[in-house]
Amino acid sequence: MRVLVIGAGGVGDAAARIAAERRFFDAWVVADRDPARAERTVAAVTARHPGEDRFSAASVDASDEAAVEALVRETGATHVLNAVDPRFVTSVFAGALAAGADYLDMAMSLSRPHPEQPYARVGVKLGDEQFARAGEWESAGRLALVGIGVEPGLSDVFARYAADHLFSEIDELGVRDGANLVVRDEDGTEVFAPGFSMWTTIEECLNPPVVWEADRAGEPDGGWSTLPPFAEPEVFDFPEGIGPVECVHVEHEEVLLMPRWVDARRVTFKYGLGEEMISVLRTLHTLGLDRTEPVDVGGVRVSPRDVVAAVLPDPLTIGPRMEGRTCAGLWVTGTGTDGAPRRTYLYHVVDNADSMRDYDSQCVVWQTALNPVVALELLATGTWAGTGVLGPEAFDAVPFLDLLAAPKPEGYGSPWGLEDR
Amino acid sequence: MRVLVIGAGGVGDAAARIAAERRFFDAWVVADRDPARAERTVAAVTARHPGEDRFSAASVDASDEAAVEALVRETGATHVLNAVDPRFVTSVFAGALAAGADYLDMAMSLSRPHPEQPYARVGVKLGDEQFARAGEWESAGRLALVGIGVEPGLSDVFARYAADHLFSEIDELGVRDGANLVVRDEDGTEVFAPGFSMWTTIEECLNPPVVWEADRAGEPDGGWSTLPPFAEPEVFDFPEGIGPVECVHVEHEEVLLMPRWVDARRVTFKYGLGEEMISVLRTLHTLGLDRTEPVDVGGVRVSPRDVVAAVLPDPLTIGPRMEGRTCAGLWVTGTGTDGAPRRTYLYHVVDNADSMRDYDSQCVVWQTALNPVVALELLATGTWAGTGVLGPEAFDAVPFLDLLAAPKPEGYGSPWGLEDR
Repeated sequence: MRVLVIGAGGVGDAAARIAAERRFFDAWVVADRDPARAERTVAAVTARHPGEDRFSAASVDASDEAAVEALVRETGATHVLNAVDPRFVTSVFAGALAAGADYLDMAMSLSRPHPEQPYARVGVKLGDEQFARAGEWESAGRLALVGIGVEPGLSDVFARYAADHLFSEIDELGVRDGANLVVRDEDGTEVFAPGFSMWTTIEECLNPPVVWEADRAGEPDGGWSTLPPFAEPEVFDFPEGIGPVECVHVEHEEVLLMPRWVDARRVTFKYGLGEEMISVLRTLHTLGLDRTEPVDVGGVRVSPRDVVAAVLPDPLTIGPRMEGRTCAGLWVTGTGTDGAPRRTYLYHVVDNADSMRDYDSQCVVWQTALNPVVALELLATGTWAGTGVLGPEAFDAVPFLDLLAAPKPEGYGSPWGLEDR
Repeated sequence: MRVLVIGAGGVGDAAARIAAERRFFDAWVVADRDPARAERTVAAVTARHPGEDRFSAASVDASDEAAVEALVRETGATHVLNAVDPRFVTSVFAGALAAGADYLDMAMSLSRPHPEQPYARVGVKLGDEQFARAGEWESAGRLALVGIGVEPGLSDVFARYAADHLFSEIDELGVRDGANLVVRDEDGTEVFAPGFSMWTTIEECLNPPVVWEADRAGEPDGGWSTLPPFAEPEVFDFPEGIGPVECVHVEHEEVLLMPRWVDARRVTFKYGLGEEMISVLRTLHTLGLDRTEPVDVGGVRVSPRDVVAAVLPDPLTIGPRMEGRTCAGLWVTGTGTDGAPRRTYLYHVVDNADSMRDYDSQCVVWQTALNPVVALELLATGTWAGTGVLGPEAFDAVPFLDLLAAPKPEGYGSPWGLEDR
């Protein structure tokens, strides 16, 4: 297996650091628009693993399908891992297909709201542009494994596991994500510094959140509907010392993926944004700073959202000043395999101190990057195999969860948890 | 008198519309970096006043002292009215002096916080860079009339009036500014759209607010000290139907101007920002979007604060969608000329419906633009005269207030009010 990672931001960087401990691949090329960023990642990996010679850097414009295709051919990549902002999903996805490589991503092609009823009906849904090309991937005998980060990704693996092994009937598959992370500046003062791309955070939090309901599956929108941003706040109690966090509906790929392969009455995603982030996002929206269309500023044209992302600390750099834990998980309610009512939270917690110590990588991006590396290993060994455009829930969950949790060096040494409530 | 206005934003545009009704000048040149903006103002004035031939448009880079000087010479301007953002004060001020013209502005050269104690001591104060050159203006026999908008401007005229005619001793000169303005979009939904330059609003609201106290006049900072942003909130009851508005300390020129010419124990400025604006400003500061140093955004360099200003509706264009009244005024406490305690609010209210009907100009910029035009007329007739760098309180207030309030066509038909409380 020869892997080409497009994007050397936080997730692309962490994926290289995780992969360097594994033997399943022959080459790992890190490509970024900015070659210095890609080289920085390769240098960091090499410094940590003396003698490691499978990693190399390249540069590419992820928005240019032909450039992606050319780089796949040039590097001889068998698998493309897309680790750039979701606005580049369609070009990287198409470039990989054109070059005959398999493809993995951690976010899917973007949605567009319903033109008349944005907070009731779906328009173009997350991933629609990718699923529309599923036939081409099948005909080519190639696999696009979409949404295989942590959320979407591990959350979808949990859904398949719950359906196969824990529940006979599922009422709700509810992804619930929360953290108690704090970032401080040099003086120890708490600062506003999102752990993940602010561009993506704005995208997912300000778009109309989507939910899926089985009893509406026969309607024209196929069971999907939308709500206003920040709808239905709910306090969810997260494990391992994180505690209660206010969560709100957010647009997320799981709601589009899970109903395609797993039976449930309802699929939701709620994110523990916290009051400050909700206030920040509301203000950005009020001012129009969430917009992506370029505006003219003294003779140059820039996207306001790019400016917001540019002024905030790079998620890649905040690890050393971050404290706390992040939790990704799936809250499942329904009837257990024993016929009794069951309410179970399946989860994965990462302590920033651990990811910093072992990988010099902050926990939020590290947790995202971990899962596609596990998936690549399952594909390399043939444990997972398929063609077409498939979500993580299309594959057997057990080998994934086993490999994730098994101690090093056999596994990735990152256990997941299960809590019946 | 030949007037050159630098800046065809909201205030520069409104000043031309007001001036077109007066006969005291021979030529009025409107100059902007963007010649189309200047031409738009001239076209609007000409359309409203057929046969009017005193107005013309020009283009100039206000940050370039030599370009300002050249344009003053080219146009033969006797008076330069600076109507651009305060960051260009020093270049326009210097260009006018170099060309031998008199000068008026509505905001003064910018402050820089004290490097160690920003929220206790002043650093470089508003206007310091201008007062430092007062000797040059005096030697040249030329006048720089600084801070002659509405605030600073009319508020300073009120201070001189209160000292000369209403009070024997003044405890506090407290500028209090409030409004009940609402802006709606095409669908009638309330939107966030500041009536004044957002660049300036950020500058004055996030800088450490300054106060002056007579009993500290002997200290190294000359009586001036600073507070944290949004300090000492106070609900002030504004007249003519506006009602109570929460006001907070804000850095403003009056606090630097009034103590130089008017005796008082304390000088303050509080602005009725309202909860939403305070929350917006806090968020912009938290994110670093108030910063002015350019950041790199995908290969271009822009100032985040310029981007914030660029995404908001242009204050020049929101008049037709605005409703309500704005009030500028001075709250004076102390001992009246009769020896009894006195508490008086001197104020000027503009209803947006009136400024739109009579000038097609929204009330906040119109109210600012009105006062330098009145001052120019007093200078043209020789009623006001002086040399050096002088604030409005250096001149007799009565002819200003009379000309402002007198019905058209003799005066400007814009009465001011006095309320003893």
